[in-house]
Amino acid sequence: MKARIFEIMEKAKYRDIPSLIFDWSLVILISLNVFSVILESFSTLKLRYLGLFSSFEFISVIIFTIEYLLRIWTSDLKYPRRNRSISILAFMFSGMAIIDLLSILPFYIPLATSIDLRVLRVLRFTRMLRILKIGRYSASMALIGRVLKRSKSDLVVTLFVTFLLLLLASSLMYYVENPVQPDKFPNIVASSWWTIITLTTVGYGDVYPVTVLGKILGGVIALFGIGLVALPTGIISSGFMEEIRLKNQSEVKKNKVCQHCGKPIDDN
Amino acid sequence: MKARIFEIMEKAKYRDIPSLIFDWSLVILISLNVFSVILESFSTLKLRYLGLFSSFEFISVIIFTIEYLLRIWTSDLKYPRRNRSISILAFMFSGMAIIDLLSILPFYIPLATSIDLRVLRVLRFTRMLRILKIGRYSASMALIGRVLKRSKSDLVVTLFVTFLLLLLASSLMYYVENPVQPDKFPNIVASSWWTIITLTTVGYGDVYPVTVLGKILGGVIALFGIGLVALPTGIISSGFMEEIRLKNQSEVKKNKVCQHCGKPIDDN
Amino acid sequence: MKARIFEIMEKAKYRDIPSLIFDWSLVILISLNVFSVILESFSTLKLRYLGLFSSFEFISVIIFTIEYLLRIWTSDLKYPRRNRSISILAFMFSGMAIIDLLSILPFYIPLATSIDLRVLRVLRFTRMLRILKIGRYSASMALIGRVLKRSKSDLVVTLFVTFLLLLLASSLMYYVENPVQPDKFPNIVASSWWTIITLTTVGYGDVYPVTVLGKILGGVIALFGIGLVALPTGIISSGFMEEIRLKNQSEVKKNKVCQHCGKPIDDN
Amino acid sequence: MKARIFEIMEKAKYRDIPSLIFDWSLVILISLNVFSVILESFSTLKLRYLGLFSSFEFISVIIFTIEYLLRIWTSDLKYPRRNRSISILAFMFSGMAIIDLLSILPFYIPLATSIDLRVLRVLRFTRMLRILKIGRYSASMALIGRVLKRSKSDLVVTLFVTFLLLLLASSLMYYVENPVQPDKFPNIVASSWWTIITLTTVGYGDVYPVTVLGKILGGVIALFGIGLVALPTGIISSGFMEEIRLKNQSEVKKNKVCQHCGKPIDDN
Repeated sequence: MKARIFEIMEKAKYRDIPSLIFDWSLVILISLNVFSVILESFSTLKLRYLGLFSSFEFISVIIFTIEYLLRIWTSDLKYPRRNRSISILAFMFSGMAIIDLLSILPFYIPLATSIDLRVLRVLRFTRMLRILKIGRYSASMALIGRVLKRSKSDLVVTLFVTFLLLLLASSLMYYVENPVQPDKFPNIVASSWWTIITLTTVGYGDVYPVTVLGKILGGVIALFGIGLVALPTGIISSGFMEEIRLKNQSEVKKNKVCQHCGKPIDDN
Repeated sequence: MKARIFEIMEKAKYRDIPSLIFDWSLVILISLNVFSVILESFSTLKLRYLGLFSSFEFISVIIFTIEYLLRIWTSDLKYPRRNRSISILAFMFSGMAIIDLLSILPFYIPLATSIDLRVLRVLRFTRMLRILKIGRYSASMALIGRVLKRSKSDLVVTLFVTFLLLLLASSLMYYVENPVQPDKFPNIVASSWWTIITLTTVGYGDVYPVTVLGKILGGVIALFGIGLVALPTGIISSGFMEEIRLKNQSEVKKNKVCQHCGKPIDDN
Repeated sequence: MKARIFEIMEKAKYRDIPSLIFDWSLVILISLNVFSVILESFSTLKLRYLGLFSSFEFISVIIFTIEYLLRIWTSDLKYPRRNRSISILAFMFSGMAIIDLLSILPFYIPLATSIDLRVLRVLRFTRMLRILKIGRYSASMALIGRVLKRSKSDLVVTLFVTFLLLLLASSLMYYVENPVQPDKFPNIVASSWWTIITLTTVGYGDVYPVTVLGKILGGVIALFGIGLVALPTGIISSGFMEEIRLKNQSEVKKNKVCQHCGKPIDDN
Repeated sequence: MKARIFEIMEKAKYRDIPSLIFDWSLVILISLNVFSVILESFSTLKLRYLGLFSSFEFISVIIFTIEYLLRIWTSDLKYPRRNRSISILAFMFSGMAIIDLLSILPFYIPLATSIDLRVLRVLRFTRMLRILKIGRYSASMALIGRVLKRSKSDLVVTLFVTFLLLLLASSLMYYVENPVQPDKFPNIVASSWWTIITLTTVGYGDVYPVTVLGKILGGVIALFGIGLVALPTGIISSGFMEEIRLKNQSEVKKNKVCQHCGKPIDDN
């Protein structure tokens, strides 16, 4: 029975009706959660239907908790390790399990702090990715996932270099613009708001350099922003190309036989 | 005669004069329609030449209606099905036919509603794509079409992930900025205006975060905006590469010979 | 002697001293022209050194005119045609020759019109590209030129589709925003300013939608702006890849011989 | 002993403990320097802990100076030349050595000028790249380095063309907008601020064209900005692809056999 429950909770195999029902019910519940969070943000709706929102939230948390507990129970099937508790820990420290826990935990802890941790329930939104797993786009999602995984190390380096560039540019800009605009560039940390918005080429226009030196520096940093787009794009492009090449290669290898003499063709 | 009319209305074959005349007349009529819509938007011109605009619109709608009816009539040649009515439906529910119908229908229905559906005639603009089909750029247009079709599934997944990111970022930004800027971030739906303008790196500057947490979040979302450019670009790049590879392969295929028996190899 | 003058004026061959002197003199003169135009834009400098600027402009125009006439004279060597006048016309209607003529012609025509055509001398700036031809970056410049030439047809289609999208989006935005912001969206032509600035993701923030429908439309158009970046990038990427592939292929073909038996390897 | 000091200061080999300690100590010191510069930019913190900041800076400069002198001492091991002084010069004029010197030199020179050259210590930030060399991302960093090196010549040409476009666009915009907005476009140099912010699609919105001609020109320049993103991205993409192809090729090379004699083929 445990194996069957695990099977149902995992991605549905072809024509496994209970598993499909489970998947779609969860997708519908998550969508309703998203919808409810959005509606609740309208203050008039929140006041009028406060009871309804609370009840729905209560039911959702209970269902998500049951699901979480079932996943802990079946964790030894997903992460087969020597020891049962290691399986549970392996599950609990997987990325999605942490997000799931964070999105339900605050409702069990009475909080007196000023920050309302129930905000964390928006983390449930990420579970809508599940819709891609059960739909007909699962191959595309897997492809994009593989490409990002393959390029991860290169992207991390790009991100680190961006971070260094951010620190360097913010410091220089602080020295140049602070004497003239002390309210816009009060310190290096605050100046980094300008830098990140320029490097990503968003450019709101709430902060911009006014001195000549600041404008020269700003222009150079904006040009580096182009590089910040070009590098990850190049990395991801080559990742997609490599995936396609591997797929073509494995397809070619299977049926490479001369159709006249029947001998296999050894084509590099 | 029906077959001939169909042939004329379809893309012109080499040196089919009536078909070319039909194609170019239609392109000219559509261009004039575009021009007329643009001129009519100048209020002074609209007042002065009201009669002229109305007459031209009247004639255009009649011509487009005749064309639409002819296409219904010849739909069994374009969509050969068992049943004639199925052919007609197959035509009527094709993408371009719906757009064509929507762009002429409002002129036959007396409307008392506040929204003027005659706005829909701008849909006729899309028919200017026809100019690419009859010109010397038809190969390029077909190539771009094939690449987009090939990449469609990956692009849909990217769009869905973008949509999720949009929901998540808008919700978080609403919680962070609403207490300080209730007019700019009144609810999650309104906050999504800020998110989409930041994710696409447009950055008008009409709305931007002012709290420290909001700025950190804004910077992270702007960085994700880079990814939003990098992913589709990578997908489309690899799509173009794959098209070129397939073209090269089919050229190579022609003169490839098995090294055992010397006969040509019919490679995958 | 005519052949020698032609040789000198063309791109310098290896160690052709007079040709190198000619090339570098011209590059220096063009650079000085650029510098002079920039300095002249400072009103204080213009007033103080008016005579100097005029003299330099006078000398420059004379030198450029002599060069232009020499190029007409040697046009039958560059464009060998049956008839001499056809050679001259072939030269005069080449892209760079038109730009060169436009940048010197206004100084020979006394102008009483309000628009000062001497503005056209900034067209001389384009001749600085010549520096790339004589320097060590000529291979890179030729590569980029070949890639752009190869991708030209695809880029033209992208540009045309962008133009259609611009017309369609501007029209829709005009209908949606004109009633609320008649000063920002007075007609379709003026609305296209907003559209182009949004599609290219520049987003100054001088014009932006304020209605709910306008913001939805604006978000969709901003997303199309991502596509407007992704498409040409994909086209150009694949163009570079194809150039590199062709180069590799031609290198491989030359020396593909088995080093044990000496027979050529026929490796597609 | 000199060889051993050189070995320790270079990138740590596998399990060379003193070298690893040296590397990590330096990374920690550089990180503390970065942190100190950031904290010092908060005026309240600077006033309160002035002594602490000065002492830390004093110690840092001494350590970096010792490191710099050690590198000069061991320069003949890094740059083996005929003459010892040429080795030292080869080291001193290497990119990173200049940056290192500039970041410590100002503290030895009493300066009475208005510009505080101690700003140059932010150059130390660049040394944080060292963290990538000793971490597990060194392969990715080397890959990105190789791709940028390979594409350098093409990127330089793109940068030069961008520079020309910047000059040309700024000049045209100056002529068009100066009569209407003399404060925003006072001369060509000042106008280039608008151009660079538009070409990089940042678009702050502090300067934008208001005339019809200026808006048309602005739209065209914004479209060129798309090209400015597309070209380097295409160059870098193909650079990554070429690197991957070379890697795959060298892997394939190992087990390729001639079909005539069965011996391994040493492919280009």
